[in-house]
Amino acid sequence: MRVAWIGTGLMGEPMARRVLEAGHQVTVFNRTAARTADLASRGAEVADSVAAAVAGSEVVVTMLPYPADVERVYTEVFEHAGADLVAVDCSTSSPALARDLAGRGAARGVAVLDAPVSGGPAGAQAGTLSVMVGGDATALERIGPVLAAVAGTVVYHGGPGAGQLAKLVNQTLVAGVTLAACEAYALAEHGGLDIEKVLASVRPGVAGSPLLDFLWGKLRAGDLEPGFKLDHFIKDLTLAGEAGGGLELSGLANVIEVAERVRAVHGGDRGTQALIKAAE
Amino acid sequence: MRVAWIGTGLMGEPMARRVLEAGHQVTVFNRTAARTADLASRGAEVADSVAAAVAGSEVVVTMLPYPADVERVYTEVFEHAGADLVAVDCSTSSPALARDLAGRGAARGVAVLDAPVSGGPAGAQAGTLSVMVGGDATALERIGPVLAAVAGTVVYHGGPGAGQLAKLVNQTLVAGVTLAACEAYALAEHGGLDIEKVLASVRPGVAGSPLLDFLWGKLRAGDLEPGFKLDHFIKDLTLAGEAGGGLELSGLANVIEVAERVRAVHGGDRGTQALIKAAE
Repeated sequence: MRVAWIGTGLMGEPMARRVLEAGHQVTVFNRTAARTADLASRGAEVADSVAAAVAGSEVVVTMLPYPADVERVYTEVFEHAGADLVAVDCSTSSPALARDLAGRGAARGVAVLDAPVSGGPAGAQAGTLSVMVGGDATALERIGPVLAAVAGTVVYHGGPGAGQLAKLVNQTLVAGVTLAACEAYALAEHGGLDIEKVLASVRPGVAGSPLLDFLWGKLRAGDLEPGFKLDHFIKDLTLAGEAGGGLELSGLANVIEVAERVRAVHGGDRGTQALIKAAE
Repeated sequence: MRVAWIGTGLMGEPMARRVLEAGHQVTVFNRTAARTADLASRGAEVADSVAAAVAGSEVVVTMLPYPADVERVYTEVFEHAGADLVAVDCSTSSPALARDLAGRGAARGVAVLDAPVSGGPAGAQAGTLSVMVGGDATALERIGPVLAAVAGTVVYHGGPGAGQLAKLVNQTLVAGVTLAACEAYALAEHGGLDIEKVLASVRPGVAGSPLLDFLWGKLRAGDLEPGFKLDHFIKDLTLAGEAGGGLELSGLANVIEVAERVRAVHGGDRGTQALIKAAE
């Protein structure tokens, strides 16, 4: 298919590469042009605006950091969209914004799907992402070949916004596991235990997860570089809190507060394993 | 081996049954005598006191609810212990108490191991528990045949108390996963998502765990019966907080506070999935 790819950061870049390698014709646009060089060397066309990327495309995929970026880009997409365009927002963003964009798109003949992903940069590189989709089911069928290049699992959750909400449910779980893994690590270290042995006891237990492996691996290496940046973590969890308006999600609220405290000292570019700094 | 088994509750009963079925000679004692009837029908001897259970045993295994029970029972065990007795406390209890009992035992020629387990009633029935051991390594070797009947994994964590501390690290993780799983479920329900589909998206992700499956299964069934009782959950987490004295474990503290609030309304015999009541 002819694919416009907008946003080539930590996640978008490896995803676009897989779509390219699957034989699709890909035109990329990124605000920081340097982040498209590798894709260009692999055969992607590089556009110098959203408008140029969208022109003549059958599918637009967006992978952007914040809801404000999503809103800005889609305003341009809608202006320049051809007939029968399907736009797929893989960013983690607001369910309310997803519903709004689906409505605005429909008025212009553009089907907008919300399709956030989980699995991190490693999942993007391996093409094993879990994709959570909301919006028009027929449009989802049409872009199947593009999603197949990046996804291990695609689940259709319902109308516009349902994909975003499913992702925020996932992030609520990720939040609690992340803080608990950091506090558990701090407790083990404080008690002078051998971390490798503790992992051998805990990992096969009921609360073991791939995220535990990842975070404890980073902590053992003393490595605060991000798989998942605090800035994006806090953005996602804030969206989850907003989506749950009326619910009393005190665990989620506590993780946000801890993450904000750690970010204020260590910076938003640190990985989420930096939450251990709040315990020490 | 000749095994005295003290404490035949939700965990102790199926564990003792497996030890019996492995061919050991088991004498059981439980404060509530009715809880020994099934074991008696399978060939266990039933003692009417700790003293009578311990007399002539090579190994004593204790599986008791609270540190105060452990302290009381071990005072009796020490009074009636024969030469070369190994005592194994599988209760989740205090690392400081474990160190104290190991010292008092050593003065009487009794090797005391702390060997708390994870895996719940299902793991006990299947003989796949994860056992975390602290204390004398030679004593651990001697009781290998007994642990083999209940354990999938046995990890030696170091001197007295190290097994308890490893278990409390595990419980710190369990605490965070439990509250996050309940809040994530509440958010999914609040947003009108299909829980089965959300699980299909979340479970293969980085934060998926067997505990998530268990808790969401209970929540979908509207079942608040315990796999893990709030009373014991709060006891374990309080011990973890004490063991981490000096650390700032705000996630753990928040889970304790939520669990205490839920217990005040719904009772300590409810399962930990009842934490969802705090979100709703």
